[in-house]
Amino acid sequence: MQLKQIFVNGERLRNTIETFADFGRTDHNGVTRLSLSEQDVRVRGYFTACCEELGMSVKVDDMGNMYATLAGSEEGPPIVMGSHLDTVKKGGRFDGVLGVIAGLEVVRTLVDHGIKPRLPVTVMNFTNEEGARFEPSMMASGVLSGKFDKAAMLEKKDAEGISFGEALEASGYAGEAENRIREAAAYLELHIEQGPVLEKENVKIGLVDCVVGMVCYEIEVTGESDHAGTTPMDMRRDALFAATDIITELRRKLAMLDPELVYTMGRMNVLPNIHTVIPNKVIFTVEARHKDMDVVRKVEAIIHGLPEEVLECGVSKTKLWGRDTVWFDPGICALVEQAAQKLGYSSRKLASGAGHDAQFVAGFLPSAMIFVPSVNGKSHCEEELTSYEDCEMGVNVVLETVLSLLSRA
Amino acid sequence: MQLKQIFVNGERLRNTIETFADFGRTDHNGVTRLSLSEQDVRVRGYFTACCEELGMSVKVDDMGNMYATLAGSEEGPPIVMGSHLDTVKKGGRFDGVLGVIAGLEVVRTLVDHGIKPRLPVTVMNFTNEEGARFEPSMMASGVLSGKFDKAAMLEKKDAEGISFGEALEASGYAGEAENRIREAAAYLELHIEQGPVLEKENVKIGLVDCVVGMVCYEIEVTGESDHAGTTPMDMRRDALFAATDIITELRRKLAMLDPELVYTMGRMNVLPNIHTVIPNKVIFTVEARHKDMDVVRKVEAIIHGLPEEVLECGVSKTKLWGRDTVWFDPGICALVEQAAQKLGYSSRKLASGAGHDAQFVAGFLPSAMIFVPSVNGKSHCEEELTSYEDCEMGVNVVLETVLSLLSRA
Repeated sequence: MQLKQIFVNGERLRNTIETFADFGRTDHNGVTRLSLSEQDVRVRGYFTACCEELGMSVKVDDMGNMYATLAGSEEGPPIVMGSHLDTVKKGGRFDGVLGVIAGLEVVRTLVDHGIKPRLPVTVMNFTNEEGARFEPSMMASGVLSGKFDKAAMLEKKDAEGISFGEALEASGYAGEAENRIREAAAYLELHIEQGPVLEKENVKIGLVDCVVGMVCYEIEVTGESDHAGTTPMDMRRDALFAATDIITELRRKLAMLDPELVYTMGRMNVLPNIHTVIPNKVIFTVEARHKDMDVVRKVEAIIHGLPEEVLECGVSKTKLWGRDTVWFDPGICALVEQAAQKLGYSSRKLASGAGHDAQFVAGFLPSAMIFVPSVNGKSHCEEELTSYEDCEMGVNVVLETVLSLLSRA
Repeated sequence: MQLKQIFVNGERLRNTIETFADFGRTDHNGVTRLSLSEQDVRVRGYFTACCEELGMSVKVDDMGNMYATLAGSEEGPPIVMGSHLDTVKKGGRFDGVLGVIAGLEVVRTLVDHGIKPRLPVTVMNFTNEEGARFEPSMMASGVLSGKFDKAAMLEKKDAEGISFGEALEASGYAGEAENRIREAAAYLELHIEQGPVLEKENVKIGLVDCVVGMVCYEIEVTGESDHAGTTPMDMRRDALFAATDIITELRRKLAMLDPELVYTMGRMNVLPNIHTVIPNKVIFTVEARHKDMDVVRKVEAIIHGLPEEVLECGVSKTKLWGRDTVWFDPGICALVEQAAQKLGYSSRKLASGAGHDAQFVAGFLPSAMIFVPSVNGKSHCEEELTSYEDCEMGVNVVLETVLSLLSRA
């Protein structure tokens, strides 16, 4: 029923991004805004003021999640846009906050054009997505989806020994459980890609159809610590030599599985880690992600197939965790794709390699994510950058998707 | 001129080893006796008392080195036996102290048999051989040999910020520079092997002809830290993958050089060392030892020949240090070999892969070392063990060598 194409206000969007970045801006133009920190509480207040100025009502649930709602002409499940306002330490100006600002800008645009939505439109801010202050990440969306136990989460402590529960109470954002979102017409999360694919292919919009499944194993290699000068090579049980052989073999086998598989040995500790002592222990992680869980299971088979002994060193494998691929709602994904096409923006399907609140939300609300390009694929650092133009295109896709949802019968 | 074969007193030797081990004995029958610690000062006092009881005079030089001398019937350069009384933290009952106790037991045996030596016989205790409290190791022998600067050594601080100079003053063992040893007929150091060769070959006496030369390099591999989930494999610059390729290549080339070459990558740090982040930096050491410096130079050529770039990661190589092989005095070594043969003990030539005071002393005194077997090749740990019988054989070789030196014209 929509007659004239409308767009968000790019200049206002840009100013909003920079205003939000002032809450915790670092010396090198990044942002440090740990969950429930003073900066987080201040930005929550600013977000509330912005929403209330638009006539939205703001509620908070028992995990501190915020819901700013513009009433619809009808009652019914709202259209929800959101993400998170917290950052990692020395993070960027875009990760998370962009998805919240997108919702705010969409509502501002509706109000600009005097559009009274048929359904309620809600902008959400999830508490503690990053897990940078209180592990695990995606804590609050995890509790809402039933993946995490609330009582256990309240006990989680930061580096200073302050529990999440204490910090939540102190922040003034411990709301009511009855405010938790339970149904929605759609949940839309705009986010930076945090990877290099869109930029490299010069595509503006990532149509995220899933958050990939992953496994993480810890491999422990046990040899014997002997004197580096006095122990002949054939009398050694060098755990580092064994570990490098294992990594070489893992890389060889994993490389043959599937071109989209990613795998990383990101953490590795060598003991005793003294230049004159043969290492007796090497512990390293193997983390792999793919949207096809069959491929992930092949990774696990390769890890389990590692020999029990390499170069006379013992090899043990422990699965630290795993999660299945989460597929987003095909109907909502189709609307997002149509929106990008209607706007004439280049787009491609993309799996999210990183975790997001949307992957938990998808368990109980029809959800989709939209990615915009990350310069050099960087995120979680002060150099994190997405051009204002790319942000604007992403928010226009959200707006267009919301309009199409509102125009549905 | 010696008519009857004499031997040391095995039971007394055993008791002496255990009595010395009481100064700092740990719960698991090891010893913690850091240089100039309370335990070290106490054992020095006990050593002094033992020597004075034998009629020896005890002097101390400006580095705290102790010289207990039994006068000879002639003036002249003394025959010196010695090693060190300090240990690493949770070290063993044999490393170092055995060489000092050997000297004490040899003098006791001379006194037992009423042998008035022709030349003075000196038993030495070198200060801070281990370097476990004040780096570097072999500090005092290094100063005596001119390898280390005394003033710089006095400034070296322990973990509590106490300087070596302060600790030396406080210990009461800051003696006179004029007491430093400058000449000797021979310097003999009995030591545990700290390696597995003698035990594995069931040989009792190691005739140490050299302390092997060594080099230590630090290799720094620089890639880029990206998100482990969002960065396709072909867009990565993974420093750990590059480092494992480099280590594999180094191992392949080093293995072809010489069967006696030993090489170790003992220290390796991965940054940022987070399982979900692609490593952007791996720093590891490559340390190699061989008695033939041509082989050591080939190791250096292999390291310098590493490519500047591996898997798009930068590779830099820094030489941390190197030292040439120190050859012991052929004449003294021959006397030691003859002594072992005369006693009917199995023996073999052996290069010392570890550093010892003797390697610095060899720069200004005719020196040799004698090794006895280490059970499982272990040292610098509480399990460190050499059987009393093997210790006794080692001390008998020292005694026999001293007697042959005394009987020379």
